Amino acid sequence: MNRRERFTDAPIGVFDSGVGGLTVLRALLAQLPHERFVYLGDTARLPYGTKSPETVVRYALQAAEALAGYGVKCLVIACNTASAVGLAAVSEHIHDVPVIGVIEPGAEAACTASRSGHIAVIATEGTVRGGAYQDAIVQRRSEARVSAVPAQLFVALAEEGLCRGPIAESVARHYLDPLFNAKTGASRPDTLVLGCTHFPMLADAIRAVVGTEVGIVDSAETTARHVRQTLEAQNLAVRVGEACLPKPAGRREGSLRLLATDAADRFARIGGRFLERPIRPHEVELIDL
Amino acid sequence: MNRRERFTDAPIGVFDSGVGGLTVLRALLAQLPHERFVYLGDTARLPYGTKSPETVVRYALQAAEALAGYGVKCLVIACNTASAVGLAAVSEHIHDVPVIGVIEPGAEAACTASRSGHIAVIATEGTVRGGAYQDAIVQRRSEARVSAVPAQLFVALAEEGLCRGPIAESVARHYLDPLFNAKTGASRPDTLVLGCTHFPMLADAIRAVVGTEVGIVDSAETTARHVRQTLEAQNLAVRVGEACLPKPAGRREGSLRLLATDAADRFARIGGRFLERPIRPHEVELIDL
Repeated sequence: MNRRERFTDAPIGVFDSGVGGLTVLRALLAQLPHERFVYLGDTARLPYGTKSPETVVRYALQAAEALAGYGVKCLVIACNTASAVGLAAVSEHIHDVPVIGVIEPGAEAACTASRSGHIAVIATEGTVRGGAYQDAIVQRRSEARVSAVPAQLFVALAEEGLCRGPIAESVARHYLDPLFNAKTGASRPDTLVLGCTHFPMLADAIRAVVGTEVGIVDSAETTARHVRQTLEAQNLAVRVGEACLPKPAGRREGSLRLLATDAADRFARIGGRFLERPIRPHEVELIDL
Repeated sequence: MNRRERFTDAPIGVFDSGVGGLTVLRALLAQLPHERFVYLGDTARLPYGTKSPETVVRYALQAAEALAGYGVKCLVIACNTASAVGLAAVSEHIHDVPVIGVIEPGAEAACTASRSGHIAVIATEGTVRGGAYQDAIVQRRSEARVSAVPAQLFVALAEEGLCRGPIAESVARHYLDPLFNAKTGASRPDTLVLGCTHFPMLADAIRAVVGTEVGIVDSAETTARHVRQTLEAQNLAVRVGEACLPKPAGRREGSLRLLATDAADRFARIGGRFLERPIRPHEVELIDL
């Protein structure tokens, strides 16, 4: 059995500390509707962003190991914190399949999109402090100027379902006005990276503050595209006809398995909003890491 | 050596999942300035509020056990989630010293303060769903009507230091207007319990929304008073003269030891605001549970 035969039908593993990575999964389901997915939310130990790098690496390795147990053909670290500090360790540990984080595709897309080279990144305070986006952008465009701003409250707003309306917009103004609407004549970024998997949920409120001229890089979208390209390049994607053709007999349907390490009810309730389809608590399997 | 000799000089142990319990510690330091305190923030595993009751009980027992190792004379569970689901288990396990949670003193104070018997409780979603405040209030005043509202965003606002100003007030209005300023003529609670240790940080914004007639029960304050009364009743408090007299030779100064299970820097940075005095990262000892 060759590599393609062994792997094509295998699932794609996706993990995050909680529900945030479901925005990445949603983008993956849209890009790769015929694949099987196993998503793991390490809800017992969320959030990763406030934990030390050593702890996050340890958790990421455990999550990767658990997903490797499902025979995955590709591993997506759909968590900014785990991508920033754990990608190298996970890639080394799970060396026989591609391991893809969310930082590099987002940085790549921002560098391509920006004309001026002034790129803003909003993320959790841990991601900003760690500097992974800043490093990944400057590696690609050494002249780039990166303005990174922690926007921690967006996480709570997204989980609370307060993604639109006056509260979301006033919080967006609080974080983004100093960068995008300053009266000082300071240079304005032309590109904004949503450097946290929760933030695509607030895209409308963010857009209302930054205006239509700023390019918004949704790292969930860019990561999903990168996963598709990687699988296609390695000839590991499920082969399908054109998406708009009627389904031929025998073509495999995509599927989704949801795992969490705790609190399946909350995962289902909040995760449904992130995935944009209802999740029933009994669909969520509890596992130990 | 009798019980008093063995115990009076022993420290008081306080634990929480993170920095929130520092509002309780701050109130304890004010009520009992001559005592020694050991505070443990289980920052590696916060938040407890999104975890299952079984997990929280396990964590609470580990934290209690760790503090028992410091020879504490009293254990304060300065965390609503751990108090709600773990008080009984911890009291049973650490049976030789008083174990005091934050729920019962808050419920007691609310029942005493309310004239109408209509009491509002704001807390995290886990605390509200668990129903511990509702139960504790109705046990004391069976005719009481309890309106419990989850106000999850207050946690993020307090940690972000956005405790005053338009964002804090618009979030406060979001949660509290339906209860306190409804146009429907529905009965208005006369008492509001801040049922999360983070919420005293937002007392000004909350007061601005509910107005001056509503009695606000700060469960940090009420818990600290309850701890002092318990120690005095059991003759275990450090004996001191009147607080306003000059310090006599040999009177013991209070002291404070801060423990965390991860991320001492963040604990120090955010905790300093909660404790209302700067905490330097090197003051925070990392321990494993």
